[in-house]
Amino acid sequence: MDRSLFFADLLNTIADRGRMMLNLVRGDEPVSADSLARLCTRLLSSQGEASGVAYAREILERWRTLDADGRLAFLHVLRDRFGTDHGRLADAVDAYRDAPDDHTALALHDAAEPARQELLRRLNLAPGGIETLVRMREDLLARLTTSPDLAIVDADFTHLLSSWFNRGFLVLRRIDWSTPANILEKIIRYEAVHAIHTWDDLRRRIEPDDRLCYAFFHPQLGDEPLIFVEVALTRAMPLTIAELLADERPPVQPRQATTAVFYSISNCQEGLRGISFGNFLIKQVVEDLRRDLPGLTDFVTLSPVPGFARWLAEQASPSAAEAQNLIANEGWHADAAQRDRAGEVLLALAAQYFLEARTTSGKVIDSVARFHLGNGARLERINLFGDLSPRALRQAHGLMVNYRYKLDDIEKNHELFAAKNDVAAAPTVRRLLPKAAVRPAAPQLLPPGRSAQP
Amino acid sequence: MDRSLFFADLLNTIADRGRMMLNLVRGDEPVSADSLARLCTRLLSSQGEASGVAYAREILERWRTLDADGRLAFLHVLRDRFGTDHGRLADAVDAYRDAPDDHTALALHDAAEPARQELLRRLNLAPGGIETLVRMREDLLARLTTSPDLAIVDADFTHLLSSWFNRGFLVLRRIDWSTPANILEKIIRYEAVHAIHTWDDLRRRIEPDDRLCYAFFHPQLGDEPLIFVEVALTRAMPLTIAELLADERPPVQPRQATTAVFYSISNCQEGLRGISFGNFLIKQVVEDLRRDLPGLTDFVTLSPVPGFARWLAEQASPSAAEAQNLIANEGWHADAAQRDRAGEVLLALAAQYFLEARTTSGKVIDSVARFHLGNGARLERINLFGDLSPRALRQAHGLMVNYRYKLDDIEKNHELFAAKNDVAAAPTVRRLLPKAAVRPAAPQLLPPGRSAQP
Amino acid sequence: MDRSLFFADLLNTIADRGRMMLNLVRGDEPVSADSLARLCTRLLSSQGEASGVAYAREILERWRTLDADGRLAFLHVLRDRFGTDHGRLADAVDAYRDAPDDHTALALHDAAEPARQELLRRLNLAPGGIETLVRMREDLLARLTTSPDLAIVDADFTHLLSSWFNRGFLVLRRIDWSTPANILEKIIRYEAVHAIHTWDDLRRRIEPDDRLCYAFFHPQLGDEPLIFVEVALTRAMPLTIAELLADERPPVQPRQATTAVFYSISNCQEGLRGISFGNFLIKQVVEDLRRDLPGLTDFVTLSPVPGFARWLAEQASPSAAEAQNLIANEGWHADAAQRDRAGEVLLALAAQYFLEARTTSGKVIDSVARFHLGNGARLERINLFGDLSPRALRQAHGLMVNYRYKLDDIEKNHELFAAKNDVAAAPTVRRLLPKAAVRPAAPQLLPPGRSAQP
Amino acid sequence: MDRSLFFADLLNTIADRGRMMLNLVRGDEPVSADSLARLCTRLLSSQGEASGVAYAREILERWRTLDADGRLAFLHVLRDRFGTDHGRLADAVDAYRDAPDDHTALALHDAAEPARQELLRRLNLAPGGIETLVRMREDLLARLTTSPDLAIVDADFTHLLSSWFNRGFLVLRRIDWSTPANILEKIIRYEAVHAIHTWDDLRRRIEPDDRLCYAFFHPQLGDEPLIFVEVALTRAMPLTIAELLADERPPVQPRQATTAVFYSISNCQEGLRGISFGNFLIKQVVEDLRRDLPGLTDFVTLSPVPGFARWLAEQASPSAAEAQNLIANEGWHADAAQRDRAGEVLLALAAQYFLEARTTSGKVIDSVARFHLGNGARLERINLFGDLSPRALRQAHGLMVNYRYKLDDIEKNHELFAAKNDVAAAPTVRRLLPKAAVRPAAPQLLPPGRSAQP
Repeated sequence: MDRSLFFADLLNTIADRGRMMLNLVRGDEPVSADSLARLCTRLLSSQGEASGVAYAREILERWRTLDADGRLAFLHVLRDRFGTDHGRLADAVDAYRDAPDDHTALALHDAAEPARQELLRRLNLAPGGIETLVRMREDLLARLTTSPDLAIVDADFTHLLSSWFNRGFLVLRRIDWSTPANILEKIIRYEAVHAIHTWDDLRRRIEPDDRLCYAFFHPQLGDEPLIFVEVALTRAMPLTIAELLADERPPVQPRQATTAVFYSISNCQEGLRGISFGNFLIKQVVEDLRRDLPGLTDFVTLSPVPGFARWLAEQASPSAAEAQNLIANEGWHADAAQRDRAGEVLLALAAQYFLEARTTSGKVIDSVARFHLGNGARLERINLFGDLSPRALRQAHGLMVNYRYKLDDIEKNHELFAAKNDVAAAPTVRRLLPKAAVRPAAPQLLPPGRSAQP
Repeated sequence: MDRSLFFADLLNTIADRGRMMLNLVRGDEPVSADSLARLCTRLLSSQGEASGVAYAREILERWRTLDADGRLAFLHVLRDRFGTDHGRLADAVDAYRDAPDDHTALALHDAAEPARQELLRRLNLAPGGIETLVRMREDLLARLTTSPDLAIVDADFTHLLSSWFNRGFLVLRRIDWSTPANILEKIIRYEAVHAIHTWDDLRRRIEPDDRLCYAFFHPQLGDEPLIFVEVALTRAMPLTIAELLADERPPVQPRQATTAVFYSISNCQEGLRGISFGNFLIKQVVEDLRRDLPGLTDFVTLSPVPGFARWLAEQASPSAAEAQNLIANEGWHADAAQRDRAGEVLLALAAQYFLEARTTSGKVIDSVARFHLGNGARLERINLFGDLSPRALRQAHGLMVNYRYKLDDIEKNHELFAAKNDVAAAPTVRRLLPKAAVRPAAPQLLPPGRSAQP
Repeated sequence: MDRSLFFADLLNTIADRGRMMLNLVRGDEPVSADSLARLCTRLLSSQGEASGVAYAREILERWRTLDADGRLAFLHVLRDRFGTDHGRLADAVDAYRDAPDDHTALALHDAAEPARQELLRRLNLAPGGIETLVRMREDLLARLTTSPDLAIVDADFTHLLSSWFNRGFLVLRRIDWSTPANILEKIIRYEAVHAIHTWDDLRRRIEPDDRLCYAFFHPQLGDEPLIFVEVALTRAMPLTIAELLADERPPVQPRQATTAVFYSISNCQEGLRGISFGNFLIKQVVEDLRRDLPGLTDFVTLSPVPGFARWLAEQASPSAAEAQNLIANEGWHADAAQRDRAGEVLLALAAQYFLEARTTSGKVIDSVARFHLGNGARLERINLFGDLSPRALRQAHGLMVNYRYKLDDIEKNHELFAAKNDVAAAPTVRRLLPKAAVRPAAPQLLPPGRSAQP
Repeated sequence: MDRSLFFADLLNTIADRGRMMLNLVRGDEPVSADSLARLCTRLLSSQGEASGVAYAREILERWRTLDADGRLAFLHVLRDRFGTDHGRLADAVDAYRDAPDDHTALALHDAAEPARQELLRRLNLAPGGIETLVRMREDLLARLTTSPDLAIVDADFTHLLSSWFNRGFLVLRRIDWSTPANILEKIIRYEAVHAIHTWDDLRRRIEPDDRLCYAFFHPQLGDEPLIFVEVALTRAMPLTIAELLADERPPVQPRQATTAVFYSISNCQEGLRGISFGNFLIKQVVEDLRRDLPGLTDFVTLSPVPGFARWLAEQASPSAAEAQNLIANEGWHADAAQRDRAGEVLLALAAQYFLEARTTSGKVIDSVARFHLGNGARLERINLFGDLSPRALRQAHGLMVNYRYKLDDIEKNHELFAAKNDVAAAPTVRRLLPKAAVRPAAPQLLPPGRSAQP
């Protein structure tokens, strides 16, 4: 028997024993947020291991049967009944003020901790607990927009999940055509960038020698991938997604490839949003590839530009108006003349979008750009007509970009971006900026505030 | 290449890159607690991944070169310079008092956290970080008696190690004669109860079909066991350790064994003292054995009584005096008459020691008893002359005891012991108490304070 | 790197070295059976390891480029130029007749061995050699009908493949939804009894807890299955294939199943036809299931009857004529009255087909029956309308049968069948025989020759 | 449960069933060669799988209880009662003579096969059969000198074991300090060249980064190694074994090593003598090391010269007499003057020993030289005082030699050696020959018969 199964089994046995003892026969009371709240209280006060695991399992099993209203009610329970014990905290505050030292501070730290954190820790001990907690956070995140008051509950989830998904526990595995089918079907399901429609589709992404895929796994989530990246080995930085995904294409011998193209990165667990692994995944894969294929010299992405069209629509500048005009009819990109003129204008606008436009809080607008630039990559090239799929035309008027990961610059790029939102970009990209807008080449010299676009 | 090696390698590569960038050439300044403190400060303020890992690795490598004084100085650095930021905390206290709600409480919680915790988290990201942190805590624990002021530093180590050694991550492995030699040599080294002197000695403990050994491992500590238990399969609850460890003994067919005897439990990592796994290890092994060998009905220990002789020496009662008298000469246990008389007296005193004697804080005196009773076991039998080795004679006048793990009672026993220090004991043990001292059978009915012994 | 890959790599390196040395630059002569013959001669006379492996690889690679005519020509080369050395054999015969003892007999044995055997042994040392030899035999088998003179070549293939596929080397593996996709696609491709059309189809056969699949593999063929069996866990011996393959059906808890149904057995390697593994596969799976699921008491098949319709068409008896009449129109099985009457007649004829009809050489007619009865199974039940697919209607007028594997009877059944073609059958099957034809129940009491049917 | 265990278990179950059926209750007749002969006859005539496996197991189990006389008697049984069926063979001879073609030749081939071969094949199907057959051949080989008439039995063992230990089935595994202890203890036991005395001794050979060990295993022999080689990574070709085995020595970083030294090769299975793996082992390890450590440029041995002293003692030449004189007293190698003079003379004689001396059948005298030269290595250097252990002084007056494996020359060297006993040797070795004896450098130009020494 597989060890992890054994373990789950053991926990179940322990929990079963606990349940009998506790008369926790399911069905004896209707499942409601209220009844769960009572069980949570009992879980927090239980001493024994068996009873603890039994309560935890019971709570999670009942939670899984709740409907949407029940789940929202339960989140409110978490928010309202398992926050900080203010009486105890007030005492700790007094004690600290009386004698402010590291001991009273630590006591204060403990007293200020919401009961939720201990509750979540104990729920995590149930068999399969972590998976249900990830689902619970998925539910929570989906409600944050409409219930921003749940953010405080999410803070505790985030804190604990970050610790449990500590990258030291992540396991990198190559995904290929000899990977178990139950994992492959998840790759099909979770691919978020360029959809995989059939098993044959999948096969074209992972079986040829010049197509690779890597995923992170976590021991407690078993066969469930956390994030994966698809890589193409090529002999040049690609301009379009079509050339990478073509059914028929000349294969590249891995030993003769010069370029590794990360053309799709998908997070698999909505409930782990914000617990970032992508950064580390790319770097690890780069190191892995460098060792196995010393001929690789370029590590680049072929990435979508999901925010460009929306941003462009909001611009009032003459060139933006011209662009909108040029691409107004649906078939603009199929007409050579229109295409050439539109291309020129779009490139200049895209350069502005990446290099100058900023959100009101001073950030780069494009979420994918934020991810790669934040990892220390450089914006290497803007590709017109990189993706002519309906979605890409809608989101980016067909633009794609390449980001380049150059190991020696990653740290420097990362730090400048983190500190000052300085965008590392190739000179050729920089030169696309409209003449009047040309700025000093070294982005770190930009006057403060410059990047805040109207 | 092994994945974990790969991972370590990658971290090293990242750290190397970081080091070059940071001009962290070792040897450019003498290693001192002060220089480490400066690096720790830089680590806490670093943003980049590579620089962070580089600092962390540098700190841990330098720490390993420190001598005893340097290490003590470094612990003082941790205590004094990386505690709570009291300025920030005071502000958070004020904010909380102005508007005491869950948000300000959470902010308070954050502000009260000692900087040490984040520091330790970041050190943990260095290659091999967790192992060095375990060593660091080992150093810390060794100094706690003479430097009780370091307890506040230990609080942070304990908090984080408990989370990183969360039992969900522990892996149980059978240890036998086909186990890798590098692990076996650690079993030899760490055996703390009944020393293993040679490889042949070891072999007698793990190779025969009626001798088993199980250990817990942690993914980030690799081949380093955390704790292990040695088990003998027998057809009766054993009276003496000699019958278990005899070079020549009639083997028992596992399928015909009725009894699993846990005769040695050793913690391997001094730096993880107090992060308890033993409880869970025994229960998991019991479940494992029950499934594989359904003929097993009894799960017992054969355990030392490390505190008995010291306790007896402190007793002023007539029977204690008589006992001391009877065992005054070294060879008392070799003389039949002396032995019979001493045995009777010792048994009664041992029953008192377990059932009635308590520390000033009301706890059971014997540390091994506290462990097993705390796990929910029952004191089953007291064995005179269970171990006649010099150490056992010195510590326990040769006594050993059996604790019994009965799965259906574990939880109840545990809760009564945890709540009231009620000792579950077999009636035969209870009857050993001197007549005058006989108490109501149900220990939970003892009047409060009763257990506090003179 | 995987060890088997490593090994293949090494062989390639050795072969590459040999090729350079031998000026074996492919393309320097047109590939023909003749040029292959020359290489084979050189291979047989080569001494060095590298040159041997180089020749072997070259021969196999060139063989793979041959067209059908070339391959036939090569088989003729094997037949004509690599047979026995009759000059040498004549000498050995003379020596034996001069002094007939075990030494001269052994020399005779060696001299009589066709050169082909050593040639095939040496070809087997090329990287991937065994796989190509299996393909070569597939080609050979396909020509045996039209070129029966190649049978002598096949004798050598059979002899060596039997030794290389010695069942001691076979590895049994469970096939399920966590099996690598590259193996699963072969299961889809090789399923010969009840076709698997899509991945979802496959999934219904291997993912549910009450659907199992096992395959034999051979270390030198890697991921290529040799044979596999599909098993359904049920609570009764099934009557129809439809109930087993239904998209929607009530699942059975494995622990509550009483019956394991082997409903599909497929050989995967045409080139290994006649090298029997099926016998052993079923017995091994039975043992495996018995251990894991002690609740299983019945091990049966649900099997096609591929020869029934053809046999029936050849019968001139009145009941055969009646049957043909009753089932003449295509929809006969959809009409209740027709169906009842036809069923009765068909059952009696089927009983005759199994129990009495024999080939001219005295064998049971049905190939599937020969397989299971030869393994020691018993004919348990004949199921009308067991499979109403076009193929099953065409081959067996919809009949299916159950064979039962009862471990205690297997050996006895097998020996009686092997020795006397005695068919073990349940009394209920035996009672289906037309009254006039009723024979003593115990098949072993049949008078000799009785079983040879007209 | 481990698959190989499962398999053994299954075979046992099948055999148990067979045994019950066959009334094979052990102890019902005294075990004797005769009773075994009867069982062998029954095994050859059995049809069923279970009965076959049952007989085979019974025979092997009874064989293991035989004493030396019984085993000899059994070998005689194999020789006398399970040879060729001469009646059947005579018929086949007649048939062949009547119509000598490939079909009658094949029939002759079959008829000439001793019954022993089929017997051994069937014995091999018992659980653990192959291991017992290897032991049986070990017994046989030990008797060949005194019973040369058993050679014909050995011919069948050799034929079948060569096929079962086909190198395609061999698995290469690195042996290091993380290898299971049960395998390591076999390495200790089987080391035949430089004895390993303790576990610490072993550890010095396999744990340091510059000390490697590789072994071949066979799937059906489980943890039993077939042959292993110990390797030292150095920066120069070593002169003495002492420098390799020193307790304290400066370690070499593997990446900085230039030379891999094969300093000990041990066959583990006496019963597989003559079934050669060593050749292939060395080449595979060379390839493995070249890939992992591209800095390695030299692959050499440090080898004993087991036949030198005996050969020298038989020489009557003046220089041989002088040598014998110079090394007559035991401490000759400790006296500088004696040592210098003796060294000069010994080197010249050693060069003669390797390059010119031959056995009466024209072979190189030294068995180790035959092995390495036969593999295609070159005699690179003769080292005086290479090994001053008593054994090495006795066998070789302290000489050791280096053979060099140069991949590009292996095949050429091998073929010249195989064809003409031409010894590939470095010019420096060749120059050691006494002046009068200097021969043309290219060994292949030696006049025929030249190498047959007096």
